[in-house]
Amino acid sequence: MENIMRFDTVNLDDGEGALVIIDQTKLPNEVELLHLSKQEDIHNAIYRLQVRGAPAIGVAAAIGLYLAAKEIDAECWEDFYRRLKQAAYYLASARPTAVNLFWALDRMEKAACKNRALAIPDIKNALRDEALRIRDEDIRVCRAIGEHGLTLLKDGDGVLTHCNAGQLAATRYGTALAPIHLGRERGMNFRVFTDETRPLLQGARLSAFELVADGVDTTLICDNMASQVLKNGWVDIIFVGCDRVAANGDAANKIGTSGLAILAKHYGVPFYVCAPSSTVDMATERGSDIVIEQRPAEEVTELWYERRMAPEGVKVYNPAFDVTDNALITGFVTEAGILRAPFTENFRRLKGAEGKE
Amino acid sequence: MENIMRFDTVNLDDGEGALVIIDQTKLPNEVELLHLSKQEDIHNAIYRLQVRGAPAIGVAAAIGLYLAAKEIDAECWEDFYRRLKQAAYYLASARPTAVNLFWALDRMEKAACKNRALAIPDIKNALRDEALRIRDEDIRVCRAIGEHGLTLLKDGDGVLTHCNAGQLAATRYGTALAPIHLGRERGMNFRVFTDETRPLLQGARLSAFELVADGVDTTLICDNMASQVLKNGWVDIIFVGCDRVAANGDAANKIGTSGLAILAKHYGVPFYVCAPSSTVDMATERGSDIVIEQRPAEEVTELWYERRMAPEGVKVYNPAFDVTDNALITGFVTEAGILRAPFTENFRRLKGAEGKE
Repeated sequence: MENIMRFDTVNLDDGEGALVIIDQTKLPNEVELLHLSKQEDIHNAIYRLQVRGAPAIGVAAAIGLYLAAKEIDAECWEDFYRRLKQAAYYLASARPTAVNLFWALDRMEKAACKNRALAIPDIKNALRDEALRIRDEDIRVCRAIGEHGLTLLKDGDGVLTHCNAGQLAATRYGTALAPIHLGRERGMNFRVFTDETRPLLQGARLSAFELVADGVDTTLICDNMASQVLKNGWVDIIFVGCDRVAANGDAANKIGTSGLAILAKHYGVPFYVCAPSSTVDMATERGSDIVIEQRPAEEVTELWYERRMAPEGVKVYNPAFDVTDNALITGFVTEAGILRAPFTENFRRLKGAEGKE
Repeated sequence: MENIMRFDTVNLDDGEGALVIIDQTKLPNEVELLHLSKQEDIHNAIYRLQVRGAPAIGVAAAIGLYLAAKEIDAECWEDFYRRLKQAAYYLASARPTAVNLFWALDRMEKAACKNRALAIPDIKNALRDEALRIRDEDIRVCRAIGEHGLTLLKDGDGVLTHCNAGQLAATRYGTALAPIHLGRERGMNFRVFTDETRPLLQGARLSAFELVADGVDTTLICDNMASQVLKNGWVDIIFVGCDRVAANGDAANKIGTSGLAILAKHYGVPFYVCAPSSTVDMATERGSDIVIEQRPAEEVTELWYERRMAPEGVKVYNPAFDVTDNALITGFVTEAGILRAPFTENFRRLKGAEGKE
């Protein structure tokens, strides 16, 4: 098997003018790199989940917006900025839930504004630098999440995870799987259970793939088996990722996360959400304010769009995410350390410290 | 779509000497009747889930054992009975968890013993009568479960179910879906949510199929969406079936049931297990004594045995059932009425009343 750990999930080929991603819809059967230059292709890659995972979407959007900027043929700042905003809106429309997409585009726009006095080619260079800074920060932040998460683990521990919040969901390391990958670098062993995560099987296809590639003892289960695995006493801790955290600590993540958190509480297993501080959205007061993306019915009714598995005439409810109540969350593992309740207060302190940097 | 409600799920064609079943592995795309005469084919049909669902397995095994008996060329009772026992052991080995399989074979053996004084052809006739009695009782019992379950519903209610404990899991009506089908006969409407039920998708393929065929407003969800559906307040009651109930009320049912029961408790939604009293196994003291069938890894790693969705090298945990703690069960809907805690005492009374019939 190709060692996925050798690739960054998202990258820029500036000479070619392309966003380079691993096509995640082809995994685990093929490792195929996509080179995308057209805005439409980048938008579709995000919508179609060829690149997915909140941090990876953020980095891809930043690089995508730089590539859009590079192509803008404008004489003056106003003209350039209007067209940059248009490109940003277009990329932002690809997926509604993960806040990192908007956060990254926002940072790019701010970088443009900050350099508005420069000549257009220099503004473009500033945007390239900002996109690469976002990428490099992502790697650093994920590594720091790994460091902090690792303090919660001991050698041999059983870890349960849902969906993929690993290297494939970021640039390197990932969020929920960062402690595992970092522990492996240090010669530690864990037993990881990964929910397959219906309907798109990110746990089976992506988490299992990168964990096996990293030499981790990995057991795949269907989502509905988590209760039994917890009951068996096989799990010491649960790590999941996150697409948006509201100011009160309610956390939107892949559909099924809230159910897993309820099971964790029932069985007395600690439940940690691993996320960069950029995922905390202080402008969203509580989880019920988060827009939840509804996806096509065929994701559920057809096995990988190939074979119909449900009768015609059935309705389908297919939310891509759910919101886990803050009361069910033991803590947040961020690059700045592990935050516990009261979340709002601790998030404010975290965001305040960032602002002052 | 073929109206599945017109067929009995399990039947005997005595002239042909065949067990007649709907091949449930072909649903929802094809309605195909199988006529099985060879013991090996009947055993495989149970193992391969062409016929499944605790009550249906019981009826199929009873008819199967009658067909085996019919072929026994024996001069004396001892010879006949020895070979009947062998056939019963063989059928019993098809699946380990559902108690109805053993219960039905046991009833057939007892019917043979009771008639041991008769000529061999008459014993065979007695076995045919017993098998058909088991089938007819199944229909009557399921209808009675429907009657009692219906007292818990009002028109327009939202009902959540897991796996398939419907008509396709019994001869007619089913257990968990019997109240829905009976309500439909009386012109009632319900909104039913059905978990797709990985790995074999009995909810998507079978429950959705028979519910849509019966004109029920049916919404398919992935198993991991149940928490969100419950949180949305769309569900007034949960009905599930059962493969074996221990004397203390712990109930083994399709994997995922225990997790659903924990969610139900968290959200304050009543959780009922619908099952014939034959599913209560007083010889099994508690849930942890129930043998849980482990199924092949490929059910999880390959989409319907066609396309690999998990990397080589990953381990798989694939239990077919889990056990729901009695404390999570609001009540059992049986043919004799709705039983609530203390379960052991009430089961004893139920079984005692049966014994006296």
